Amino acid sequence: MSNIDQTIKIIFQPEGRAVHVLPGTTIFEAAGKAGIVLETPCGGKGACGKCRVTVVSGRPEPTDADREAFSDGELRSGWRLACQNRLTEAAVVEVPQDARFFGQKILVDGIKRDVAINPTFRKIFVTVPEPTLEDARCDLDRLKGCLADVTTNPIARLPLIRTLPRLLDEHNNEFTVVLENDEIITIEKGDTTGACHGVAIDIGTTSVVGILVDLVTGESKLTASRMNPQVSRGDDVVSRLSYISENEHGLQELHERIIGCVNEIVAELCEKASVPPEQIYELAAVGNTTMNHIFLAVDPRKVAQAPFAAVLREAANVNASDIGISINPFGNVYTSPNIAGFVGGDTVAVILATGMIHGDGVRLAIDIGTNGELVLATKDRVISCSTAAGPAFEGARIQHGMRAAGGAIDKVVFNKAVRVTTIADAPPRGICGTGLIDSVAEMVRTGVVDYTGRIIDVGEAELPDFLKRRVVESEAGNEFVLVDADKTDNGKNIVLTQRDVREVQLAKGAMRAGIQILLSVMGLAADDIDEVYLAGAFGNFIRRSMAKQLGLLPDIPSERIAFVGNAAATGARMVLAARELRAEAEKISKEVEYIELAGRPDFQQEFMSSMLFPT
Amino acid sequence: MSNIDQTIKIIFQPEGRAVHVLPGTTIFEAAGKAGIVLETPCGGKGACGKCRVTVVSGRPEPTDADREAFSDGELRSGWRLACQNRLTEAAVVEVPQDARFFGQKILVDGIKRDVAINPTFRKIFVTVPEPTLEDARCDLDRLKGCLADVTTNPIARLPLIRTLPRLLDEHNNEFTVVLENDEIITIEKGDTTGACHGVAIDIGTTSVVGILVDLVTGESKLTASRMNPQVSRGDDVVSRLSYISENEHGLQELHERIIGCVNEIVAELCEKASVPPEQIYELAAVGNTTMNHIFLAVDPRKVAQAPFAAVLREAANVNASDIGISINPFGNVYTSPNIAGFVGGDTVAVILATGMIHGDGVRLAIDIGTNGELVLATKDRVISCSTAAGPAFEGARIQHGMRAAGGAIDKVVFNKAVRVTTIADAPPRGICGTGLIDSVAEMVRTGVVDYTGRIIDVGEAELPDFLKRRVVESEAGNEFVLVDADKTDNGKNIVLTQRDVREVQLAKGAMRAGIQILLSVMGLAADDIDEVYLAGAFGNFIRRSMAKQLGLLPDIPSERIAFVGNAAATGARMVLAARELRAEAEKISKEVEYIELAGRPDFQQEFMSSMLFPT
Repeated sequence: MSNIDQTIKIIFQPEGRAVHVLPGTTIFEAAGKAGIVLETPCGGKGACGKCRVTVVSGRPEPTDADREAFSDGELRSGWRLACQNRLTEAAVVEVPQDARFFGQKILVDGIKRDVAINPTFRKIFVTVPEPTLEDARCDLDRLKGCLADVTTNPIARLPLIRTLPRLLDEHNNEFTVVLENDEIITIEKGDTTGACHGVAIDIGTTSVVGILVDLVTGESKLTASRMNPQVSRGDDVVSRLSYISENEHGLQELHERIIGCVNEIVAELCEKASVPPEQIYELAAVGNTTMNHIFLAVDPRKVAQAPFAAVLREAANVNASDIGISINPFGNVYTSPNIAGFVGGDTVAVILATGMIHGDGVRLAIDIGTNGELVLATKDRVISCSTAAGPAFEGARIQHGMRAAGGAIDKVVFNKAVRVTTIADAPPRGICGTGLIDSVAEMVRTGVVDYTGRIIDVGEAELPDFLKRRVVESEAGNEFVLVDADKTDNGKNIVLTQRDVREVQLAKGAMRAGIQILLSVMGLAADDIDEVYLAGAFGNFIRRSMAKQLGLLPDIPSERIAFVGNAAATGARMVLAARELRAEAEKISKEVEYIELAGRPDFQQEFMSSMLFPT
Repeated sequence: MSNIDQTIKIIFQPEGRAVHVLPGTTIFEAAGKAGIVLETPCGGKGACGKCRVTVVSGRPEPTDADREAFSDGELRSGWRLACQNRLTEAAVVEVPQDARFFGQKILVDGIKRDVAINPTFRKIFVTVPEPTLEDARCDLDRLKGCLADVTTNPIARLPLIRTLPRLLDEHNNEFTVVLENDEIITIEKGDTTGACHGVAIDIGTTSVVGILVDLVTGESKLTASRMNPQVSRGDDVVSRLSYISENEHGLQELHERIIGCVNEIVAELCEKASVPPEQIYELAAVGNTTMNHIFLAVDPRKVAQAPFAAVLREAANVNASDIGISINPFGNVYTSPNIAGFVGGDTVAVILATGMIHGDGVRLAIDIGTNGELVLATKDRVISCSTAAGPAFEGARIQHGMRAAGGAIDKVVFNKAVRVTTIADAPPRGICGTGLIDSVAEMVRTGVVDYTGRIIDVGEAELPDFLKRRVVESEAGNEFVLVDADKTDNGKNIVLTQRDVREVQLAKGAMRAGIQILLSVMGLAADDIDEVYLAGAFGNFIRRSMAKQLGLLPDIPSERIAFVGNAAATGARMVLAARELRAEAEKISKEVEYIELAGRPDFQQEFMSSMLFPT
């Protein structure tokens, strides 16, 4: 009953990359599956006209939004908005460079922010004048004179000063000065002004993502990711904190693991982009407060106990070599500021990237990861909370759960048959987050799961035959066979157990309860929300209808729900490219209020009712 | 013919310290000989009334200045101004604490500057509130909250932050925060706010002097000094620079020697004052540009060749442990900014200490060391130069020259006999700088030396018998027997050779030529000078009349000549106690013009004529 035969083949040019998707898939989704992320500053509403592609063959009829965005001639040439067009037959799609998420000179976040390039690190090629009896200024003052256009008061520290007379001689007074803000941090032979890079890192509890950014052009060049190697010491924040409490060298071990992981990502980016590590001058890392503390080797244990106070809120800046990050040894490692013990720098980055604290209206950001962080903003007040969603949506604690890798079931529809697609069209190996949401949502819609979350007994209710035969009894209650053994990678059934459904209930219940509490603190109702930003590594691939069907999101019109992708990583890219945004991050960190759900008498009640499925 | 029998004994109380001096010596000079340095903000003119002492016995008649300064009752009680009263008989003198140079809460330099205490390092005892659900601020923010009265934006770096949670636990939230400007550099157990010290260091080419300063009270507690151990690698700046050029590891060797020397001085100060080295948080070092560069391990070789450009002009701040200075490992080492390759941070410190760039009139500062640095200031312009005086005045290159230590002949009068005094009244061992000036001045006055500097042949001119017998022939020309063999420490004559006289001529000629060039650059004559500041380790002990007799100083009225002692060290003490003076030092360093004597066609002529003695 797997549906590989029913899919359509879409080829993306100029890469020539082919994917198989279900009919009705948008071009945007199909491109994402092919690893091509398109710009959607408007959140996929067809409003911004950025995701423009040419459909060479298998062209759908133009939509209203297409007619708005393109001339008749363009439409005849095949131009379409990727977010608005659904593919119904095999197609060939041409994706121009400027529609790609990483193809712009000016960094644009997932929503609406344009940022001019102004990185912390700059390079200036200088020719230092020789001293004369008329101008016998010291070496350093003559060098500083060459930087007058760039900074009025350049700073040099002793180690650099010590090298200066030799460098002037060796390089014949010509070299490239590397500035970190106003400090001369190093001097490089020749003119290297064209080579200045940074890496943005999103340290998730489960996954770590790195993006290579060209600090001259602002362009994001490549991404690389790894499983967070701390996972073997606990799959969520609380279990990591326990591990540190219970093991004398636990903090050091977890610290070394994440530093090693980040270094692997940096090395991969360098190799793929042919950029030497010495040409990477800054790494900007965002993560939740515990990940932030462990990355910095700051003891996070107090976060685990009431009143959940962290050690560090503000941003940290550390010399790369001091913290063991393998970029230029004079480079800087920046970590974004936190808000509270359970709302960290990744949330600050999401707020920064979405620009949600600016402007009018009621805005809700939902960053779905191992924890679910929520931010609700009005013109006058911004509040946040964290819900212990658990790693279910990242594939953990689910019997056949897995990360969004090849063979992961990522989309499920119950329509006369159980239809699934997998990443890379590989034989099914397990279920990733979106597949899990789809599956449970469809099980609820079709009555396989009742509103309390129980997988019903066969015969208890009327089920179509194609579903009925899939509900089987097991020792731990009923389970649902999603893919039969003969269609899977290892020849065994892929199932969803009663416990899996409970995990999804806990995760979505926690998240939804958090949303309700934030609304209640502000005296608002769900319908007051003007815009929802769905962020997170897999946020872009959740189907809004499924999320509402599951009760993860309140029932608000889908056009108010925008996908902002990995907004935390976008925020990290933004602070890399534009140093003045660090002051905004500090302001966000200080001014966004934290609501401690555990401290609220109404939370348990809200949580219990949020665990139920909509009827 | 030594005159120990003709001296008078003076006892200083409450120390009970006794010295023997020639009749006619001022109380101020006698106290200096006893190691008790008195305040003379007015430069010894009897104007400021600071050097007030009680003469218990052997009381001189009150002078006019005494009558001005004291009531009749006070005069009857024995109060006198130390700078105005000459002792003619054995006496007992009581020196109150507030007349002592190091006995004040507010630092006062040798001349006129009052400075409020505002050191770079401050300590604050804090009790950090425990976090609560209502105040779940992070550890660092709660700590920062305790510092709100002291600094609005305290800075903490990662190594300190890492220690914070443990320190809060171990010290039960109570401890002392050490601030360097606005940065929290360390945390100490208990309340240590009373213990905060600094060391001012004057790194001379020949001598190194350290002063322990209490940064809470501003009081200078102790001094200690050493010969600069680089002396064995050359006795002046130029020979040190040659040593570095000619030896691969020369810079490193000389750097280690001076660091070791400074550490010895610090250790001696700590031991004598019973202050643990960890309670010293800052060391402020002044020295000429070459000493400054060697101390910082910055290659100074370019200073040796035209156009004499240094590597570093500005002040440096280095972590104590990074440069190997044995104070608190988190402490700071500050070096004052330089003016040019041959006018360094010691001259900046002299200018700062004297306050000579403020106010009206024409002021000349003369800092006499191995080099002679000169500064001429008017309201509108300040110029400086350096003269390679050589180390003659520090006792080097003189056959029987020695430092101003026990047994050094420090005062000489030819008056029917050759009368000398020695430091600590020990049997004569050699001649120090003041003794040298006295001797040559007296030899010139009595005709033993002619105006060209030649020691005359016996019979060439009429000499009194007590001198005639002292002029003897030797292989290298005539020489003058200052002390007969039977009166000296080692049983051999102490003599001044023709070459010794030439060294003095070179030194005083260079200095005087520098003065004349500076005056000529400004279009001024010697008589236009309103005030001369005589600085340098032995500056306080030169006799003005002798200096003029020698031609070292122009013939201007003695009351315009003020002794400011080791003003370079005073400047170092001042920047330790008052951080805002560092900005003034930077301004001085940038704005004082440097006149390169070697680049001037008129210098050689001026130098030749300045070598002659006045007739």
